[in-house]
Amino acid sequence: MINFVFKNPTKIIFGKDTENSAGKETKVYSDKILLHYGGGSIKKSGLYDRVRKSLDEAGIEVFELAGVMPNPRLSLVQEGIKLCRDKGINFILAVGGGSVIDSAKAIAAGVPYKGNVWDFFSGKAYPAEALPVGVVLTIPAAGSESSDSAVITNEDGWYKRGLTNECLFPVFAIMNPELTFTLPAYQTACGAADIMAHIMERYFTNVRDVDFTDRLCEATLKTMINNVPRALNNPTDYAARAEIMWAGTVAHNNLLSTGRIGDWASHGIEHELSAIYDIAHGAGLAIVFPAWMKYVYRHDIKRFAQFAHRVWNVEYNAFNIEETALKGISALESFFASIGLPVRLSQANIDEAHLEEMADKCTGSGSWSIGNFVKLNRDDVLNIYKLAL
Amino acid sequence: MINFVFKNPTKIIFGKDTENSAGKETKVYSDKILLHYGGGSIKKSGLYDRVRKSLDEAGIEVFELAGVMPNPRLSLVQEGIKLCRDKGINFILAVGGGSVIDSAKAIAAGVPYKGNVWDFFSGKAYPAEALPVGVVLTIPAAGSESSDSAVITNEDGWYKRGLTNECLFPVFAIMNPELTFTLPAYQTACGAADIMAHIMERYFTNVRDVDFTDRLCEATLKTMINNVPRALNNPTDYAARAEIMWAGTVAHNNLLSTGRIGDWASHGIEHELSAIYDIAHGAGLAIVFPAWMKYVYRHDIKRFAQFAHRVWNVEYNAFNIEETALKGISALESFFASIGLPVRLSQANIDEAHLEEMADKCTGSGSWSIGNFVKLNRDDVLNIYKLAL
Repeated sequence: MINFVFKNPTKIIFGKDTENSAGKETKVYSDKILLHYGGGSIKKSGLYDRVRKSLDEAGIEVFELAGVMPNPRLSLVQEGIKLCRDKGINFILAVGGGSVIDSAKAIAAGVPYKGNVWDFFSGKAYPAEALPVGVVLTIPAAGSESSDSAVITNEDGWYKRGLTNECLFPVFAIMNPELTFTLPAYQTACGAADIMAHIMERYFTNVRDVDFTDRLCEATLKTMINNVPRALNNPTDYAARAEIMWAGTVAHNNLLSTGRIGDWASHGIEHELSAIYDIAHGAGLAIVFPAWMKYVYRHDIKRFAQFAHRVWNVEYNAFNIEETALKGISALESFFASIGLPVRLSQANIDEAHLEEMADKCTGSGSWSIGNFVKLNRDDVLNIYKLAL
Repeated sequence: MINFVFKNPTKIIFGKDTENSAGKETKVYSDKILLHYGGGSIKKSGLYDRVRKSLDEAGIEVFELAGVMPNPRLSLVQEGIKLCRDKGINFILAVGGGSVIDSAKAIAAGVPYKGNVWDFFSGKAYPAEALPVGVVLTIPAAGSESSDSAVITNEDGWYKRGLTNECLFPVFAIMNPELTFTLPAYQTACGAADIMAHIMERYFTNVRDVDFTDRLCEATLKTMINNVPRALNNPTDYAARAEIMWAGTVAHNNLLSTGRIGDWASHGIEHELSAIYDIAHGAGLAIVFPAWMKYVYRHDIKRFAQFAHRVWNVEYNAFNIEETALKGISALESFFASIGLPVRLSQANIDEAHLEEMADKCTGSGSWSIGNFVKLNRDDVLNIYKLAL
């Protein structure tokens, strides 16, 4: 175990009807807020009305900025920053999934900053402060509701960049599993793959003596494996939806990273995929992760065998550890397929046309490597794309 | 899963040499502090010197209050409150185990309060605020380093009472596993029993659909089961000490309680034991918990069978679930015995002389019941003491 610092100040308000406390929780911080959301789904579902009612009853003045898209855009962030400055807004309430939350975080960091907020994402500057952000979560996937990071896309060149800073932790996250009842099956499955990927990126580490966090990762993965099929089978299964939602937060709130170094190559490899093709992040991860595993498992067969045995209940064959390891990778792939996700590029109608280009973008044409568990150069990344065909 | 609110703001600074950051972490909050500790062990080990050096280098004015005893006393708390007020101290640094931390928390709550701090423990008043408290932890056991509770003993009548309030979370906890190398084997084992009891009190619940937190509890228990024997076998095994120390914090920081209601009867039953007899809290729990289990397991045999199967690797006998359940209880008892703890009152030289008296005190002579998993009346408690003889 390596030295670590762990702090996560986000207040989680979890359970049925909790969106009705949005006003009370917000009032602690502000009387004048920006309500930030995406398209019309929260209006159709009635969530918008309940949140507005709660805010109105708390006597909070509300300005609105809607229209956040998947891969949230810098232009809308800039618009939000201007609106907050013009109106003297000092709190942002994000109602939605990871994209809305990330957009809110970027606005929050940009308001008190004199320069261009993109400076934070391009690495030119670090935010010293940010407006407080509250969340009403509607999609378990990104983990942004209790994380210190945000990813924004700059349309000027279509750069997609991330920012991690302590000031980006939301001050509260309201999480009602009932809000996820209406998620389509495919979106539920994509969210599940994203959550599982967050855990697996942390699980595959070269740091030794990480028994406790290994077991916490395994517990969280097993929770997903048990409950995602239940939620798909019965979308209004509160218990299953609740397990997934809470597991999705813990998967990415940094507890599972304590004392270890994660890999994160698969996220980088997937990133180029969804930058070029119109494919959901979770679906891309379902394709990339098994391929990455097949490419790197020999680096630490014992860790992969432990993954197979403890997470997927593969019988441990001490005389053929490689067989044990491979059965685990196969079980993961089968699981992703069973919940309706593609596990090959071909299943997502992606051919080899852009593989070289993606491998170049992923590694600066070979000028840097990615991944901590195994360092991957440009050709490694290309080989993984090919394995995924 | 039931609705819940979860927030834990304590910053954990974990690993080798981290005590040398005590000054830097403290400086964020104060220039004038109370350094609170127990006997001379931190002076013998050199920890005192390192912490003082770090505080001095940060330019922090330090007042000291030593002498905290196990079952920390109200009189010393009162002395600390007076000292803080007289000197204008606005931060308390607790260096030690749970008793020192609890004493510091009580002082912190008492300083800004006009009445008697015991009001908070007797239930007459609730603290609205408290001074910030920082921790340098030396004993993994109580979990107080990242909890919102404290237990204090009032010598005037020897009442031992607890207080839980959000303002009692330490602002930071510095945790260097090396500081636990010198813990005697018996104290290591007692701390382990305390940690495991914190998990098991949460595990045995009547709340349904708690798959994720069940698995997190199991993961934490298995970490203890694997690493405590290692630490006893080799007291300077950093990896084992680190796993125990971090598991001990997570066991009691409320994550494992999310969405469920714990039992806590065993803590009440043990409490009377250590109030009358000179027995360590962890040793008392090692005696009480297996007896409690034998008394209540029929209430939910499937939960006990799951405990046996998942935590203790007992083969699940679907045709004799009771047998499976009983094997788990037996495994827990054997484990406690194997790490050098008593598992019968007789092994702690306690006979039946005071059993009736303890059952009376534990239940207000039968005027209230204890426990949430199974409600226990006075006679139930007496029967459990007898089962433990």
